[in-house]
Amino acid sequence: MEVMSRKNPLGEKMYKWARDLFPINRSITGPGVRETLNYLRQLNPELNVHSVSSGTQAFDWTVPDEWQIRNGWIEDPLGKRIVDFKLNNLHVVGYSEPIDEYLPLEELQGHLHSIEGQPNAIPYVTSYYNRTWGFCITDIQRRKLAPGIYRVVIDSDLKPGYLNYGELFIKGKSKKEIFISTHICHPSLANNETSGPVVASALAQWASTLNNLRYSYRFVFIPETIGSLVYLSRNLKKLQNNIVAGFNITCVGDERCFSYLPSRAGDTLSDRAASHALKHIDSNFKKYTWLDRGSDERQYCAPGIDLPIASIMRSKFGEYPEYHTSLDDLSVITPGGLEGAFSAIKTAIMAVEQNCRPKYKVLGEPQLGRRGLFPNLSKKGSTSHLRVMLHLLSYADGKRDLLEIADIVGVAISDLSLVSSELEQAGVIDLDWR
Amino acid sequence: MEVMSRKNPLGEKMYKWARDLFPINRSITGPGVRETLNYLRQLNPELNVHSVSSGTQAFDWTVPDEWQIRNGWIEDPLGKRIVDFKLNNLHVVGYSEPIDEYLPLEELQGHLHSIEGQPNAIPYVTSYYNRTWGFCITDIQRRKLAPGIYRVVIDSDLKPGYLNYGELFIKGKSKKEIFISTHICHPSLANNETSGPVVASALAQWASTLNNLRYSYRFVFIPETIGSLVYLSRNLKKLQNNIVAGFNITCVGDERCFSYLPSRAGDTLSDRAASHALKHIDSNFKKYTWLDRGSDERQYCAPGIDLPIASIMRSKFGEYPEYHTSLDDLSVITPGGLEGAFSAIKTAIMAVEQNCRPKYKVLGEPQLGRRGLFPNLSKKGSTSHLRVMLHLLSYADGKRDLLEIADIVGVAISDLSLVSSELEQAGVIDLDWR
Amino acid sequence: MEVMSRKNPLGEKMYKWARDLFPINRSITGPGVRETLNYLRQLNPELNVHSVSSGTQAFDWTVPDEWQIRNGWIEDPLGKRIVDFKLNNLHVVGYSEPIDEYLPLEELQGHLHSIEGQPNAIPYVTSYYNRTWGFCITDIQRRKLAPGIYRVVIDSDLKPGYLNYGELFIKGKSKKEIFISTHICHPSLANNETSGPVVASALAQWASTLNNLRYSYRFVFIPETIGSLVYLSRNLKKLQNNIVAGFNITCVGDERCFSYLPSRAGDTLSDRAASHALKHIDSNFKKYTWLDRGSDERQYCAPGIDLPIASIMRSKFGEYPEYHTSLDDLSVITPGGLEGAFSAIKTAIMAVEQNCRPKYKVLGEPQLGRRGLFPNLSKKGSTSHLRVMLHLLSYADGKRDLLEIADIVGVAISDLSLVSSELEQAGVIDLDWR
Repeated sequence: MEVMSRKNPLGEKMYKWARDLFPINRSITGPGVRETLNYLRQLNPELNVHSVSSGTQAFDWTVPDEWQIRNGWIEDPLGKRIVDFKLNNLHVVGYSEPIDEYLPLEELQGHLHSIEGQPNAIPYVTSYYNRTWGFCITDIQRRKLAPGIYRVVIDSDLKPGYLNYGELFIKGKSKKEIFISTHICHPSLANNETSGPVVASALAQWASTLNNLRYSYRFVFIPETIGSLVYLSRNLKKLQNNIVAGFNITCVGDERCFSYLPSRAGDTLSDRAASHALKHIDSNFKKYTWLDRGSDERQYCAPGIDLPIASIMRSKFGEYPEYHTSLDDLSVITPGGLEGAFSAIKTAIMAVEQNCRPKYKVLGEPQLGRRGLFPNLSKKGSTSHLRVMLHLLSYADGKRDLLEIADIVGVAISDLSLVSSELEQAGVIDLDWR
Repeated sequence: MEVMSRKNPLGEKMYKWARDLFPINRSITGPGVRETLNYLRQLNPELNVHSVSSGTQAFDWTVPDEWQIRNGWIEDPLGKRIVDFKLNNLHVVGYSEPIDEYLPLEELQGHLHSIEGQPNAIPYVTSYYNRTWGFCITDIQRRKLAPGIYRVVIDSDLKPGYLNYGELFIKGKSKKEIFISTHICHPSLANNETSGPVVASALAQWASTLNNLRYSYRFVFIPETIGSLVYLSRNLKKLQNNIVAGFNITCVGDERCFSYLPSRAGDTLSDRAASHALKHIDSNFKKYTWLDRGSDERQYCAPGIDLPIASIMRSKFGEYPEYHTSLDDLSVITPGGLEGAFSAIKTAIMAVEQNCRPKYKVLGEPQLGRRGLFPNLSKKGSTSHLRVMLHLLSYADGKRDLLEIADIVGVAISDLSLVSSELEQAGVIDLDWR
Repeated sequence: MEVMSRKNPLGEKMYKWARDLFPINRSITGPGVRETLNYLRQLNPELNVHSVSSGTQAFDWTVPDEWQIRNGWIEDPLGKRIVDFKLNNLHVVGYSEPIDEYLPLEELQGHLHSIEGQPNAIPYVTSYYNRTWGFCITDIQRRKLAPGIYRVVIDSDLKPGYLNYGELFIKGKSKKEIFISTHICHPSLANNETSGPVVASALAQWASTLNNLRYSYRFVFIPETIGSLVYLSRNLKKLQNNIVAGFNITCVGDERCFSYLPSRAGDTLSDRAASHALKHIDSNFKKYTWLDRGSDERQYCAPGIDLPIASIMRSKFGEYPEYHTSLDDLSVITPGGLEGAFSAIKTAIMAVEQNCRPKYKVLGEPQLGRRGLFPNLSKKGSTSHLRVMLHLLSYADGKRDLLEIADIVGVAISDLSLVSSELEQAGVIDLDWR
């Protein structure tokens, strides 16, 4: 299924972006987010970067202080630097307070994080809303720590500043929108989450080049949770009025599987388009339920928000071994993985673009023969194309849309869309695009 | 399941009709149709024959010129007549133009039709709406043709005339109708389609003899597609107002299986009655979907027409090897096959006749004992008849009809109908026949 | 699953009641019913005993004469008393007329009842509405009867009197009621039916001790069929207005399985609560359908009555070998069996009490962290309690009730109820108790 790297220029291009973005130390606020947004603006120059002050209310939440970190390390009792933020930005717990102290191993242990079952992984830990500090190390290293006095230094600031996010709007024929969201708050983690901004940027480039888009497109690049809450609190009515479908882009970089996570409602146009697209790309795709959610769909689909946001993923967050550890590095994602995800989401988006309600203009079957759409000679057997055309006609009652008909007939909506155009041009059906 | 021929006078009678009708060279228009209708009028003298002029508009279609064919043959380079319409009327492509020419084998090949995978079958080919000519032969014969100059003669006319169809109306207590349609446009083909007019004629004879019919009955004998379109274009509003259920009768002659093809809506009274009837006749009956359609249900159920027409068949068109070839001859159909189809469709019709909504006249269970409907002594175990009676009572809420209750309880509606009469006579339920 | 007797004081207590009640010769009327109600009034002093005169109309039925029986026996040709009512009250057919006659074996046979397939069982036979007399004996005894003249004596009365039933009302905060019905008309039969009144009495004691009940509770102890019809005919409107859920208590004494029989509608609150409770108690519980009904649900759910009454049982009536024979004795039921049924029904009742509609007070997810409901540190993995809390929040749209959410999430409503209280106290959801 995956395209070979040599022959996959789009995948190669996305993988290069991921390599550039991977090392940046992102968090929910701070210079890493801004550096990331600056890079993304090079890819899509129309990207607007917004700044929201610390202390701003967003529904039940408050934008926290901005976190800046310059350095962090641990020195062992012999004065040897054994943990160093410069070597891996996962080593310092996200939003750690500044500290510079000497303390015995027993006390240090309360500030260390490692994973017993993954002894060679540095875990990813944050504490956004409770002031503390800590270091993340491999369990192998932790087990070797000798008793004694350690020096811990974190050179960080926590003070009022800004939460930043990017927004890109591409105007289509309709003010109704397709909404794409991804997050930019994870430090050096590849599948979750360098892949999301990368694939979303490629989708934005693709949508920008299209003419005659039926829908407008809105791409947002935000810190997870607080970012989507801030964005929703500022734009809720507009989003509720305009969004016809949308996708949260996360974990879209590896090649192990395709995954689908439904919206809370479960049967929105986004869900139907995502299921339809994946069914025709890889019929073994994994179907999760709303109970498996965990990213910004939690906000977009919350009661009272109720946006139609579904997720098409590769290996889902929480479901692959490298998740939220230093093992989720650039070796986990591939050009083919990124390109496959791009292609699946593009197919789902096109399904929304192509979806319409075909409606008969005549009574009884139209006479396709005199319009050159039917074989002149009636013999045993009939072509598959003709069968699909007749099926589409028989369901063209103005109630069913192409997605529903495609699923009944068992063909891709892209094929059905071509047939519906032929029939519209032949004057036997109308297409209702509302 | 099939009744032995010796003991099956109805099956024998229908088989004789089929033998009489089989040789006639039918098409969608022409003397073969009229000869067929004349024969059918002998079976049901009330049958009205209608004539519709060539050029008449029927929705998106136009009644074509009438086709008359007197003869057709091919002579080989030695002057030997190797193909002869008089021997098998499938040899000439339906609606062939007249021709009398000499032409080399290479050129002749473009006008020959045979089936590679069925080398001993003459295919059935027509070209109603595109002027051409051709011959149908076995592939065995075709492979033996030697190079040389052949003479081809088709003595036919294509000129303004009439499309004919038959209509039979049997008045019942209600102006609401049960509608039966079958087609009379296939030449010497047995299961598809000599069986349809034969079984429909037997059903008409049966319905004519019944007194106290709840519904009126309308039987139409039409050429497929153009005939149903013509009929619909002249009667649409009446049909939409009056038809409560209906069946398209086709492929009802062999003994290999029972088949059910739903209406487009899939859950009409016709569908429920057909499924119910077949379930109790042969639980292994084949269930097709709307995607498998192919006969006049395409018109009757088209969007905007939306009549409740389902199909009960034996081996379905397109699904048995002899279909649309000379192999679909009188050896394919049997008295038992015809009689079984007759019986199944009659059972479905009776299910519609018997269907009503039973409604409690008392509160709580009625005391059946004092009405002689309950065993006086209460012991462990109870009779099946009593269980069915109690089940019917418990669902007699005025919302469910007998068909639904029969399916829940798992009994035939004919049995339930007897029980509902008992209960009505005992004064504990009303029957709502609307 | 069953609690050991030694450690099951409630089960032991109920079993003692069953031992006391078992020997009483109950029928649908007469002193046995009154003796039973007197005993039950000792357990729940608020129990009101109602008397309804013979001849009173109840919908389609009439309260029959009262039956009193003092004695009954058969003497064999040698004058030996071979059948004696004093030894087992099942020996005389219920509602037998008085008789004192000598008659030959051939004639006696017409008045004897035994079960060929259960040769050592005395069957339970009644004839409430048709005057007759008879004796029930084991088939073993019957086969040994020698030809000759037998004396049969039944010292009984059938004359105007009363039908009695008990009713207990426990006032809760709402006038809406949970309704519990059980029957008191079976003589010495244990699972069906000494267990029902015993478990219903224990439930009434339990409900009486609770403070702050949301709903009022109504317990009725009635003769089966005629009793429920009488009760309904006197209270129908009140019941239809007030009952939110209810359970018919029968066959709740053995340990072989749990069973669920739905209401006629099948999806009432009672059905949902019963299914939910049993699923979490014993996932292998047997699911019957409305076609398997047989007790007073026949009246409570009849068309036009339509109360939401479901049944939680142990081995269902008609489905265990001892049913309606002398083998259904005190060895069939156990303290553990009674206690398990009590507990299951109590759980279903509590599910109704706990059921409410949670509704978000904020937009987007509430910030649980600052309310102490979220771990301060975000690491891989999350606690089950937190997952349940987030699931409840995500479904708190004011449309779904706790029972539905519990079934989606896969937890017991009792657990979800605790979580919903936490969230209500934290001010992030409202609970709609209507």
